[in-house]
Amino acid sequence: MNAMSKQQLLSMLVEPAETKLLLIVLDGLGGLPVEELGWRTELEAARTPNLDELARRSALGLAYPVGHGITPGSSPGHMALFGYDPIECEIGRGVLEAIGIGLELTENDVAIRANFATAELRNGSWIVIDRRAGRIPTDECKRLCELLQSSVERIDDVEVIVRPVKEHRFVVVFRGEGLGDSVNDTDPQVVGAPALTPKGEDEPSERTARLAAQFIERAAELLRNEARANFVLLRGFSKVPKLPSMNELFKLTPCAIAVYPMYRGLAKLVGMKLIEVGGESISDEIEALRTHYGEFDYFFLHIKPTDSRGEDGDAHGKVKVIEEFDEHLPRVLELNPDVLVITGDHSTPSVWRAHSWHPVPFLLHSRWVIPDSDASGFNERACAKGMLGHFPMIETMSLMLAHGGRLQKFRA
Amino acid sequence: MNAMSKQQLLSMLVEPAETKLLLIVLDGLGGLPVEELGWRTELEAARTPNLDELARRSALGLAYPVGHGITPGSSPGHMALFGYDPIECEIGRGVLEAIGIGLELTENDVAIRANFATAELRNGSWIVIDRRAGRIPTDECKRLCELLQSSVERIDDVEVIVRPVKEHRFVVVFRGEGLGDSVNDTDPQVVGAPALTPKGEDEPSERTARLAAQFIERAAELLRNEARANFVLLRGFSKVPKLPSMNELFKLTPCAIAVYPMYRGLAKLVGMKLIEVGGESISDEIEALRTHYGEFDYFFLHIKPTDSRGEDGDAHGKVKVIEEFDEHLPRVLELNPDVLVITGDHSTPSVWRAHSWHPVPFLLHSRWVIPDSDASGFNERACAKGMLGHFPMIETMSLMLAHGGRLQKFRA
Repeated sequence: MNAMSKQQLLSMLVEPAETKLLLIVLDGLGGLPVEELGWRTELEAARTPNLDELARRSALGLAYPVGHGITPGSSPGHMALFGYDPIECEIGRGVLEAIGIGLELTENDVAIRANFATAELRNGSWIVIDRRAGRIPTDECKRLCELLQSSVERIDDVEVIVRPVKEHRFVVVFRGEGLGDSVNDTDPQVVGAPALTPKGEDEPSERTARLAAQFIERAAELLRNEARANFVLLRGFSKVPKLPSMNELFKLTPCAIAVYPMYRGLAKLVGMKLIEVGGESISDEIEALRTHYGEFDYFFLHIKPTDSRGEDGDAHGKVKVIEEFDEHLPRVLELNPDVLVITGDHSTPSVWRAHSWHPVPFLLHSRWVIPDSDASGFNERACAKGMLGHFPMIETMSLMLAHGGRLQKFRA
Repeated sequence: MNAMSKQQLLSMLVEPAETKLLLIVLDGLGGLPVEELGWRTELEAARTPNLDELARRSALGLAYPVGHGITPGSSPGHMALFGYDPIECEIGRGVLEAIGIGLELTENDVAIRANFATAELRNGSWIVIDRRAGRIPTDECKRLCELLQSSVERIDDVEVIVRPVKEHRFVVVFRGEGLGDSVNDTDPQVVGAPALTPKGEDEPSERTARLAAQFIERAAELLRNEARANFVLLRGFSKVPKLPSMNELFKLTPCAIAVYPMYRGLAKLVGMKLIEVGGESISDEIEALRTHYGEFDYFFLHIKPTDSRGEDGDAHGKVKVIEEFDEHLPRVLELNPDVLVITGDHSTPSVWRAHSWHPVPFLLHSRWVIPDSDASGFNERACAKGMLGHFPMIETMSLMLAHGGRLQKFRA
């Protein structure tokens, strides 16, 4: 039992129940004091009567997505919230990029992040001049991806999928049996250096590397008349990780209500059913929750714009998103879920204009908590003093299962 | 990636930046309520307007050097503060004793703690009568060490270094190639028992053991006319641990401002540059910090007397040291470091008169914290309620690096 992970412990103790668990993730929720908000955080400045009232009937805390000082990308925070170790459970960059544009990957796929680049052929080597081809516009990226896709549909017996992302970035997927993903990046990371040759660390990966080399050659041929984007660099070769599903691990029947492809993709990786949402607003998402509330027992509802406004450095915008969520909160509370968690996957303070390492405000509502009755509301400072203390975000699943009456006693 | 330590994670994410990080360690800072201070702790009783004001612009917390209930010696707390696992990163007793008296050790050295003892030769065995030779005065220790040193400069091709410490305690160093340190203590720990024979667990250590046996024999010969200190006991055979430097691990250019040899030695073990200090006072140390502020990006400033007064049981004395530091604090703040941490390496409550297990008050000042604006000041009770929560002291480095903008995002 020495090295039993928290996940194994939960799997051992979990039992089904009739309870409903609802996780609402306001992406990038946590913030820092903002001068224009009177040195209050976005959560402190937002007018949120419903959240504040709920906070005083809930237990509050601060959750660390990965650890002190560690700024998580989009996947580690969500993995932790879903009950998966955010460090051990690695999702490759190629896979993330692919699910980020809504590509449905199979277990036979190797997904690759690709850049259009400017390069020069000297003595048989492609010397990289601009790793991003001058950040060509997204429209140009689309045109070039269509060109590549229409000319390179297969290499040998392997299907090739080429899809644009944004500016110089695109995705390549090799779909075929027996392909490995232990292949080095071809991007030399510096200009003036030759693009690297893809090499595989094992036989299946060597097969992928050979496909990649052919793809690069074909692309260079097809792009030869482009002024800027005349070459491609490949990075982050990866296959979909084989994760046990939330149903296997936690005996849940989970669903995801999310608008952005990245989060739908992450939810799918852990076996959530994806719910169609009628529009892109918070209200649309809550409507979808209400519509499908009878069909599942675990609901992941993802709200993106808190993070987007934080990354924009738009403090007032972030405040407005929080207030918009607060307005619609009563429609969630009407469902009366047995366990309701409202938190973020990481902090995105608008003064930092990026994801940050700060722990995330966390609210747990259930019949079975000691409420933080004297909390000033739902905000970072109140959460720092809350009944739940400061804890690793991966504990979210154990807390939700426990408060949902879904965990047996540990030993006698 | 399975068992990635926090240190490995940081090394993976760290990137250089222009920011300055300053760690001020008030040794043994934390305390307990003292009756003569009106049941306040030394930090609560001290008049510290500058620290208190700073606390309300900083994030506070409590740091556990090793773990709940564990009282650290001098090295584990500092190792944790420097970002090294205080349990895994073991520094031998011989090495600690040697660096504590300012001996500069090389990688070829085996350092040994030695005691002068009283012993009696019976049937060819040295029976220990007094393990500390009646705690001979330090001057006598010096005289005897000079005697040993002048007579035993080498054994075979190995240099022998003998240096006094205090009372019956001294240090022996064997300097030569191919010496191991897996050698048992010769001190039987009880009187009336024979001194043990040094034995090595492997071939290099067996070589050291043979040197040690010869050293003991020569010492007994040289000391035969001493009334009390007629024998020596050897303990804590150890080599300098091979630690990766802070520069390798964290891409920092670190320096140490410390007066006591022990702390200078610990700093040197992790690759800090040692700064000369013009005197021994807190003011002298801060002057040295100001003089060298342009040359480094990480500064470890060590203040010893808080611990000394705690060990003396001198509550008022400890209060005075804290107040003295507070007076000079503005000269530190004028430097405007990007990240400033003020904490201890462990607690030394004056009522306990020794190191204790209590978590240590921790203050983190940076542009990127949510300040504990309503803190009563910088003290244990305020820290227990602070925004940083209660956390392992080894997180200090991650917090400092993160707030200094020196950690990349963890995955996408």
